[in-house]
Amino acid sequence: MAQDKSESLPPKENFSEWYHEIIQQAQIMDIRYPVKGLYVWYPFGFKIRQLVYGKLREIMDRDHDEVYFPALIPETELGREGEHIKGFEDEVYWVTHGGLTPLDVKLALRPTSETAMYPMFKLWIRSHADLPLKVYQIVNTFRYETKHTRPLIRLREITSFKEAHTVHRTFEEAEEQVRKAVGYYKEFYDFLAIPYLVIRRPEWDKFPGAAYTIAFDTVMPDGRTMQIGTVHHLGDNFARTFGITYEKPDGEHEFAHQTCYGISERCIAALISIHGDDLGLILPFEVSPTQIVIIPVLYKGKEKEVLELCEKIFDRLKGFGYRVLLDDSDERPGAKYYRWELKGAAMRIEVGPKEVAENAVVVSFRDERKKFKISVEELTKERIEKWAAEMKERMSKAALERMKEKIKYFDNISEVAGWVGKGVALVHLCSSTECGDSIETEAGGSVLGRFEEKPDWIDVEYEGSCIVCGGKGYLNAIAKTY
Amino acid sequence: MAQDKSESLPPKENFSEWYHEIIQQAQIMDIRYPVKGLYVWYPFGFKIRQLVYGKLREIMDRDHDEVYFPALIPETELGREGEHIKGFEDEVYWVTHGGLTPLDVKLALRPTSETAMYPMFKLWIRSHADLPLKVYQIVNTFRYETKHTRPLIRLREITSFKEAHTVHRTFEEAEEQVRKAVGYYKEFYDFLAIPYLVIRRPEWDKFPGAAYTIAFDTVMPDGRTMQIGTVHHLGDNFARTFGITYEKPDGEHEFAHQTCYGISERCIAALISIHGDDLGLILPFEVSPTQIVIIPVLYKGKEKEVLELCEKIFDRLKGFGYRVLLDDSDERPGAKYYRWELKGAAMRIEVGPKEVAENAVVVSFRDERKKFKISVEELTKERIEKWAAEMKERMSKAALERMKEKIKYFDNISEVAGWVGKGVALVHLCSSTECGDSIETEAGGSVLGRFEEKPDWIDVEYEGSCIVCGGKGYLNAIAKTY
Repeated sequence: MAQDKSESLPPKENFSEWYHEIIQQAQIMDIRYPVKGLYVWYPFGFKIRQLVYGKLREIMDRDHDEVYFPALIPETELGREGEHIKGFEDEVYWVTHGGLTPLDVKLALRPTSETAMYPMFKLWIRSHADLPLKVYQIVNTFRYETKHTRPLIRLREITSFKEAHTVHRTFEEAEEQVRKAVGYYKEFYDFLAIPYLVIRRPEWDKFPGAAYTIAFDTVMPDGRTMQIGTVHHLGDNFARTFGITYEKPDGEHEFAHQTCYGISERCIAALISIHGDDLGLILPFEVSPTQIVIIPVLYKGKEKEVLELCEKIFDRLKGFGYRVLLDDSDERPGAKYYRWELKGAAMRIEVGPKEVAENAVVVSFRDERKKFKISVEELTKERIEKWAAEMKERMSKAALERMKEKIKYFDNISEVAGWVGKGVALVHLCSSTECGDSIETEAGGSVLGRFEEKPDWIDVEYEGSCIVCGGKGYLNAIAKTY
Repeated sequence: MAQDKSESLPPKENFSEWYHEIIQQAQIMDIRYPVKGLYVWYPFGFKIRQLVYGKLREIMDRDHDEVYFPALIPETELGREGEHIKGFEDEVYWVTHGGLTPLDVKLALRPTSETAMYPMFKLWIRSHADLPLKVYQIVNTFRYETKHTRPLIRLREITSFKEAHTVHRTFEEAEEQVRKAVGYYKEFYDFLAIPYLVIRRPEWDKFPGAAYTIAFDTVMPDGRTMQIGTVHHLGDNFARTFGITYEKPDGEHEFAHQTCYGISERCIAALISIHGDDLGLILPFEVSPTQIVIIPVLYKGKEKEVLELCEKIFDRLKGFGYRVLLDDSDERPGAKYYRWELKGAAMRIEVGPKEVAENAVVVSFRDERKKFKISVEELTKERIEKWAAEMKERMSKAALERMKEKIKYFDNISEVAGWVGKGVALVHLCSSTECGDSIETEAGGSVLGRFEEKPDWIDVEYEGSCIVCGGKGYLNAIAKTY
């Protein structure tokens, strides 16, 4: 597929340009689709998506059933929950015509699926025996974004929204599910070696209609945070609106309690942004479309032996079940190194005449780029698994270190603004809207909220005096956000 | 999940009611979503979808890359190909507003993706080395259907449209891909044990903008045909409209030639309709969400031993990698038989005290319902695979027999109308629009077209005199269609 191979990536320290370029050059998404905020998944990008969402599906399938609800929601349903519609009305795409015929009832393109699902949950749930109900779907959702759009980050069509919705008997049971969901998301992001902060959003920034919202934020290379997952306790708010009740064993009817939680393709944006370097993508072994690339280093008169060994190794690794590619194209090795570094092949194997003589290969991993030699016999599945796990470990550690450097505690309000934009400011803050407003104005960033779980490596007390009013406060994070 | 268990299925000979009921009762789709033509995939139905589309993906992945293009197509692109837009303009859903703001350019919800993809193909393809390009996606598409809607068959949101699009250098190379695509679809429907007719649509019924269209039709229990797949040769028609050219080795630029081919969730509608019986679903072993159900037959005082053997067998079959379920709920065996027949569990194992004494189990398959006894040791993976293959063979054969009974040749025009509606009429017909119109009016059905491949079991010559004008004709099929 044609692309400009002459271009090279800008350095990652110019993050915004780097991101813009890597998305196109590594063939994640084609950004040239003729509508703002809509992008095309290239085959290569789509493979990453499939691998990442395969893991997400595996995690969800343990505790949920997959379903599919319609993409079109009648205006009458979307508008039923007052807070909810207020939160979405400015960004809903409306379908008003079928062919040339105006529709009787306008249809919204789902921005999220509460109002598509919950009228049906009312029909599905009758008795306590029908609970808990836990479903999820992976679907396209739509937002009319008026802000600057960006592939995978701010989209008009979110192509890969994983949304889970659960129904329970009591507030406490729903809360238990919230905790489980936080655990699932941790597992998912740990798998991707992406560090995160688990933060309870302030009242003014929770999901429209929720009792409370817990978010996963990661810190991008430019110091802005990106929300990469949210978990909402909905209380019985939607249940009251949509009439979702259940009959208890004693015959009484009660409103159910609900949760919902979602992850979008921002998980892929984080994967690219958190791990990539000046040369291109760095992907954990499990989600690299090309896990291992074999590159023959050919010298005149030795081509045959080298290619034979390459093929032998290819067959061996294929036999282990890996996604392996033998790049025997006509290009020079340097051009191949360039391409596969750009595309984040996790492991590289080079074979030249010297290796043939020694029945060995030169191995390197994308994150370290340290080369070492190993005999062909020693290239076992066990060893590769171990290397892959070590690479993941290195990636997690490095990413966490970079995140830590971007997080600083402040107890002097006048210093916060100088940091926000470069990184995340930690401050003690009470929960009043006034103090929130005040610090947001002062800092030029958003209050992400207080830590739901304070990481071990933050050695500041969880409780402290509010940086604005001096009253009882909790550790909050403040940042510019994506 | 609550449902009315008291209902029973209408007999399948009342096909329309049977279909309506089985979709809801077997929990394929919930038909109660509050917009006409939109339905909800239940967890059970969605599992069938995943299994069926897993196979389709497996077949497509051999020769295509999976991609994803936006669901929203600007009016300016959708309208570029004259024939194409004429074919779709009455049934396109239009997005006209984002929030309260009217859009500058109206956006169509994709009815199919030619006009989303081909402007990008123009950018992707430069030289002959970029060809062939073969991609597919599985997406939701939208049609404003004004006719009677039906779950999985006639929908306003087609939730699972697999559409492949390929680009080639020459008409002949594209034609070769058409042949391959026909082969892929045969493999897919053979896998589902669904018989089909491969028919070239008449000129007036080809895909808007195509050079020609080859369709797969199956015959439903009521004698109407259902189109379950189409393969289109697009010639260089779209390439000319969208400027898709490539540079030949000699430096000249040529228009590319294209194909596209699609299958929707009608494949699931066919699966249900072709194989089901008065008791419910019959599904091939590979696509049955519950491949094997184990039902304990409990007698007082013998519960423990029976359940122990059930669990032992469960572990054994789980170990083989099967989707197996031990139904140890409190219901009577009869109620369990009813449920699992309704849901099409392919294989049933019953265990009672007698079986415990003999260390044996009673086995039956959903299509035959003949019970036989076999010792636990003989319940090997090899044997189950063999039984599953035999069941598929029986299902294919039975389905083909039923289809044959609904296909009759006519050489007397006055007799055709009496059959069309009950089944498919075969006639010799020339390719003129006049004779087509005439026979459609006479027969009260549609000309499906002439056989692209005449099956062996049709013992009528391919060529013959047109039943209308007496000129040179070919074997055509005429039917009422879904």
